[in-house]
Amino acid sequence: HAASLSRNSAPSVAMEAVLKPSCDLPKDMPKIRGYDFNQGVDLHAVLKSYLTTGFQASSLALAIQEINTMIEKRLEPVEEGEGNESETPKSGCTIFLGYTSNLISSGVRESIRYLAQHKMVDVIVTTAGGVEEDLIKCLAHTYLGDFSLPGKELRLRGINRIGNLVVPNDNYCKFEDWLMPILDQMLLEQNTEGTRWTPSKMIHRLGKEINNTDSVYYWAYKNNIPVFSPALTDGSLGDMIYFHSYKNPGLILDIVEDIRRLNSQAVFAKRTGMIILGGGLVKHHIANANLMRNGADYVVYVNTGQEFDGSDSGARPDEAVSWGKIRTDAKPVKVYADASLVFPLIVAETFAQHVDKLAAGKKTD
Amino acid sequence: HAASLSRNSAPSVAMEAVLKPSCDLPKDMPKIRGYDFNQGVDLHAVLKSYLTTGFQASSLALAIQEINTMIEKRLEPVEEGEGNESETPKSGCTIFLGYTSNLISSGVRESIRYLAQHKMVDVIVTTAGGVEEDLIKCLAHTYLGDFSLPGKELRLRGINRIGNLVVPNDNYCKFEDWLMPILDQMLLEQNTEGTRWTPSKMIHRLGKEINNTDSVYYWAYKNNIPVFSPALTDGSLGDMIYFHSYKNPGLILDIVEDIRRLNSQAVFAKRTGMIILGGGLVKHHIANANLMRNGADYVVYVNTGQEFDGSDSGARPDEAVSWGKIRTDAKPVKVYADASLVFPLIVAETFAQHVDKLAAGKKTD
Amino acid sequence: HAASLSRNSAPSVAMEAVLKPSCDLPKDMPKIRGYDFNQGVDLHAVLKSYLTTGFQASSLALAIQEINTMIEKRLEPVEEGEGNESETPKSGCTIFLGYTSNLISSGVRESIRYLAQHKMVDVIVTTAGGVEEDLIKCLAHTYLGDFSLPGKELRLRGINRIGNLVVPNDNYCKFEDWLMPILDQMLLEQNTEGTRWTPSKMIHRLGKEINNTDSVYYWAYKNNIPVFSPALTDGSLGDMIYFHSYKNPGLILDIVEDIRRLNSQAVFAKRTGMIILGGGLVKHHIANANLMRNGADYVVYVNTGQEFDGSDSGARPDEAVSWGKIRTDAKPVKVYADASLVFPLIVAETFAQHVDKLAAGKKTD
Amino acid sequence: HAASLSRNSAPSVAMEAVLKPSCDLPKDMPKIRGYDFNQGVDLHAVLKSYLTTGFQASSLALAIQEINTMIEKRLEPVEEGEGNESETPKSGCTIFLGYTSNLISSGVRESIRYLAQHKMVDVIVTTAGGVEEDLIKCLAHTYLGDFSLPGKELRLRGINRIGNLVVPNDNYCKFEDWLMPILDQMLLEQNTEGTRWTPSKMIHRLGKEINNTDSVYYWAYKNNIPVFSPALTDGSLGDMIYFHSYKNPGLILDIVEDIRRLNSQAVFAKRTGMIILGGGLVKHHIANANLMRNGADYVVYVNTGQEFDGSDSGARPDEAVSWGKIRTDAKPVKVYADASLVFPLIVAETFAQHVDKLAAGKKTD
Repeated sequence: HAASLSRNSAPSVAMEAVLKPSCDLPKDMPKIRGYDFNQGVDLHAVLKSYLTTGFQASSLALAIQEINTMIEKRLEPVEEGEGNESETPKSGCTIFLGYTSNLISSGVRESIRYLAQHKMVDVIVTTAGGVEEDLIKCLAHTYLGDFSLPGKELRLRGINRIGNLVVPNDNYCKFEDWLMPILDQMLLEQNTEGTRWTPSKMIHRLGKEINNTDSVYYWAYKNNIPVFSPALTDGSLGDMIYFHSYKNPGLILDIVEDIRRLNSQAVFAKRTGMIILGGGLVKHHIANANLMRNGADYVVYVNTGQEFDGSDSGARPDEAVSWGKIRTDAKPVKVYADASLVFPLIVAETFAQHVDKLAAGKKTD
Repeated sequence: HAASLSRNSAPSVAMEAVLKPSCDLPKDMPKIRGYDFNQGVDLHAVLKSYLTTGFQASSLALAIQEINTMIEKRLEPVEEGEGNESETPKSGCTIFLGYTSNLISSGVRESIRYLAQHKMVDVIVTTAGGVEEDLIKCLAHTYLGDFSLPGKELRLRGINRIGNLVVPNDNYCKFEDWLMPILDQMLLEQNTEGTRWTPSKMIHRLGKEINNTDSVYYWAYKNNIPVFSPALTDGSLGDMIYFHSYKNPGLILDIVEDIRRLNSQAVFAKRTGMIILGGGLVKHHIANANLMRNGADYVVYVNTGQEFDGSDSGARPDEAVSWGKIRTDAKPVKVYADASLVFPLIVAETFAQHVDKLAAGKKTD
Repeated sequence: HAASLSRNSAPSVAMEAVLKPSCDLPKDMPKIRGYDFNQGVDLHAVLKSYLTTGFQASSLALAIQEINTMIEKRLEPVEEGEGNESETPKSGCTIFLGYTSNLISSGVRESIRYLAQHKMVDVIVTTAGGVEEDLIKCLAHTYLGDFSLPGKELRLRGINRIGNLVVPNDNYCKFEDWLMPILDQMLLEQNTEGTRWTPSKMIHRLGKEINNTDSVYYWAYKNNIPVFSPALTDGSLGDMIYFHSYKNPGLILDIVEDIRRLNSQAVFAKRTGMIILGGGLVKHHIANANLMRNGADYVVYVNTGQEFDGSDSGARPDEAVSWGKIRTDAKPVKVYADASLVFPLIVAETFAQHVDKLAAGKKTD
Repeated sequence: HAASLSRNSAPSVAMEAVLKPSCDLPKDMPKIRGYDFNQGVDLHAVLKSYLTTGFQASSLALAIQEINTMIEKRLEPVEEGEGNESETPKSGCTIFLGYTSNLISSGVRESIRYLAQHKMVDVIVTTAGGVEEDLIKCLAHTYLGDFSLPGKELRLRGINRIGNLVVPNDNYCKFEDWLMPILDQMLLEQNTEGTRWTPSKMIHRLGKEINNTDSVYYWAYKNNIPVFSPALTDGSLGDMIYFHSYKNPGLILDIVEDIRRLNSQAVFAKRTGMIILGGGLVKHHIANANLMRNGADYVVYVNTGQEFDGSDSGARPDEAVSWGKIRTDAKPVKVYADASLVFPLIVAETFAQHVDKLAAGKKTD
């Protein structure tokens, strides 16, 4: 190192480092430019401008593009003979949707319910809470509270907190009243008809029983969308199954049949897309199933996890590429955000556009 | 503890804990309910529904409400005699806007420029990069890249990375060409006219010189919005000032006059609102000025920082309440999100609505 | 507001706000004071000083205290007649340990193995990966890589990445060779002896079969520590079970029996402590079991999750208090950190001290 | 894609994807292996084992290595004629230390003070709070509180919260009493002796005036370690300077001279190391100075920031490589952790070892 110096000029090492000339960039790199509100308030145009806004705005725009590609590919006709006879893929792209329990507690549930209602996704993976909270919401309400409500006071009053939401504990009592006879019936069918219950079969039955158009799982039942939740006992459903095991013992929930059923959804698909909101089991379970086909083709993660602690929840999509869970030529997108902020916007710019177009098409027929 | 047991019933301690009855909730608690896309795709309605969606969706909705309150209070007429003669508050609510450098590099700059252009905010605080990147964008473009572009290769090609943005180093060379004569002129005025330069005066001058309607600081200059940036030497401006100190030494930038000027904006305001995007200096500097008036009345933070490391950046608004930087009766809102995702949406639902209404009013006159 | 002004004094509102006098603090508040290295390098003393260092250093010190209380309470003799005959609590405090898969992939595994080996914990909850990665490590190594190794290249070479670790895919092939005959045998026992397999029974068997003192689950088997993992099919074990379902179909893994077994560990305990490293299923499953006893008495969480997205993973302990999963009079501790950084230090200052003391006691006998 | 199927075997695509063979790894990749507490509790050995523990444990071990390299290089004799006469580098490696205000409020201050006392670092950059909190601690104590203490109650009692610390507001009143005469004196010297005050000169003076061996800045003064803080008015010092501007106006604090002084520390160094705790100004300011020499040679970041929002605070070191702020051949280390957890451990394993060795050497002389 030699910092040359003359009386009147800054050290040359500094000037050269600061004023280093640059090579040309590729011609097709988008210029950064945000929305100009002088054009008027047009939220659709604002979201379009996110592609050239940078940071997570760009990630959101790319996620919207990726999901629109999933939808487009899904419409492609499946040629005859693809897949095994009994396992013919139903569409050009099988879409796996995963989400954590809290999103069902939140108003994101209505977006998810809309997707199930209009059969916009093919496979769902969620946690126990992601199932039961949807059913419970058909029985009683969840409310907006605050992140800082003190736990002790809440417990004394029988109010449960989920982030800034609150759920009266009575809701779970109502759930018990509703569920217990169904568990009795399930056990009866197991004992008399030889039904081998799995979490996915149980969720299908619960969707049928709830018989409520507000419910995600009602529509999953109606539209034959399989819902996987291998740890279905980890929540209020588990509490009730635990109580039931004293009152009327013997129910078996098998997770082996479900892993084969889930993997088959990936293996026999023409292409697959993964939309995963949050981390933990739902993220790993969908990605692992897609390893069975040497990787998903299209991928959107929405979560707040970070990679530095080596968690699967926080891992970037590129980690899943190394495992063969995402194709090596895929262009997966991760949006670093609370899904409540972005998922309704994503649905607005993707699936809902598509449903509206279909409806408009039908009207003009 | 006594886990009573009979053959056919679950332990009573478990049943009592799980089925604890709840007290009534306050009548006015909002029920959680997300947007129903069966109503059609209406993004404005989607954002309205965020209030009852929970988690950060609710925080975003509350932030929009808080800023709309700032705008409304700002319109309130100021009674005669309020404040000192020469320091009469200009409006019913003085709005402080702070943001970090990266947001000017991103397309959020266009939202900020819109606010300066329409004089929607009264005081701006930013970092050195938050000033220079706006000016440099008037000379050359910033591009969308990727978070994973390798640093070594980029440096060899003279390309600088900011998250998923890239800036050719030539842009900084152009900035040097543009800035050096201005520094000469500033030094001349200091020596001949006795100008005591401060960061805010320098930014005012740079806004005048850039003379470009794309620039935030052009509009801040035009609309007399003071811009504070006490560490103005911490960036490319500092690099150029450093080079200039060899070529043409003697320039002085004083930060004492600016702290008095900034504090006066808070002290003599009728009410104040703080909108702070990101952390670090901009967050602390605005809040500290508002301590001078025993706290801001209305507050919105948008950032991704967390409180667990005791940083000011990640501190919840309630920490600032303890310091007297936010009023004890304020209802401050923090949105945990990358500002690029939410700030354009916030502007769309607040300031831009207001500007459009004003414009519509003028047309009908 | 009235900002009184005279020529020579700052606005009174500012002076009063800034110089507001303070009330006395409680006498027993610890003074902040870090370690003085002039005392020499004594790491034990450094960690002692963390209590008065603030931020997460203080949290770590409190976590160490909380776990030492668990250990002390665990030693308390259990009076006769407590609990049901067959379910007599074995100690004064039943310690539940939960951890995510990545920690077994990391060197934290050796700390966990040490706890199992010395029977320092009573119940373990982990994910599928948390089981299989321990067994696979008995067959082949995991290596230190880097967070930025590119996924595509890794996949082409058959190398899997977990954060900054890498695992050759051959390790999973070796695991298949090892596991398949065990699955055959398990199916045989199911069909001939009527064994009703559950995840916990399967893990017990795998721990016996691996027969390797490096293994967590070998020691869990030896020391009869039940290990729960309701979604045991979500990982390489699931892949193998899936393959096995073609080769030799019929195995059933029931999760109902396990939820009763897990809940019983909580219900019939005298007191309970929860040590939970990471989020997702392991965090919720342990806490939910402790709801069955109206809350755990002692609690340490170590994770990097945040509450703002309403996730259970990021929820503060106080959220679990509202649900009755933690006692209202408990003093739960959350350490915001990657467990790899802090858990070995925690073990060093708690369990390992205790084991060493016991060993020293035996020697002097 | 063709999922071949026979009655008895799993789909071949699945088996091939799962059982893909792996290429050999480089021979020198470290095997993951954590500390074995059966070897006894040896905290130094535990920290040694962190290198092969993975995740942030490995990052911490690498940070310790990187800083030990800085110390070693610093000892290398500087050849004659290197640098300009008046600017001869004083050592083989100039170490820049940066930290945010909160760390001075915490017990990390004692580690930093130790480094200044033993002249282990060459340049310090911090924020206003990073200066004043050290001085104030010489006047009165800071206490351990809790993150959830309510802001309104605290304000009413005149208690300020910093994360889980609390500072009585009286401390700031004492600071005013101490500081005002010094400001008077500084102004006098400016007016009578022509002193051109800069933040670094003011900090030097304050260090002299505080005359307390507990103070970081006392030792920085004694050992002639320059301390830079361009936004020195952004905090309690600014409040006092603001009040002083009414009582006794005219003080000027120039930031131009300081940027040249800071940059010179980097330009005329033989090699440089950066140790940066936290984000915001301190991180950018040190890195920007190191651009002046085309990059630092050795780098350790400790912070909790993330890159996804494009902030400089959260940027990985590789972003700084693209800017020329870190050498392209450097091996920079980022530890994702609250500095209170890891910095005392880092000092224990680096600087303090070195000081102890020096002291031992002197004794044996």
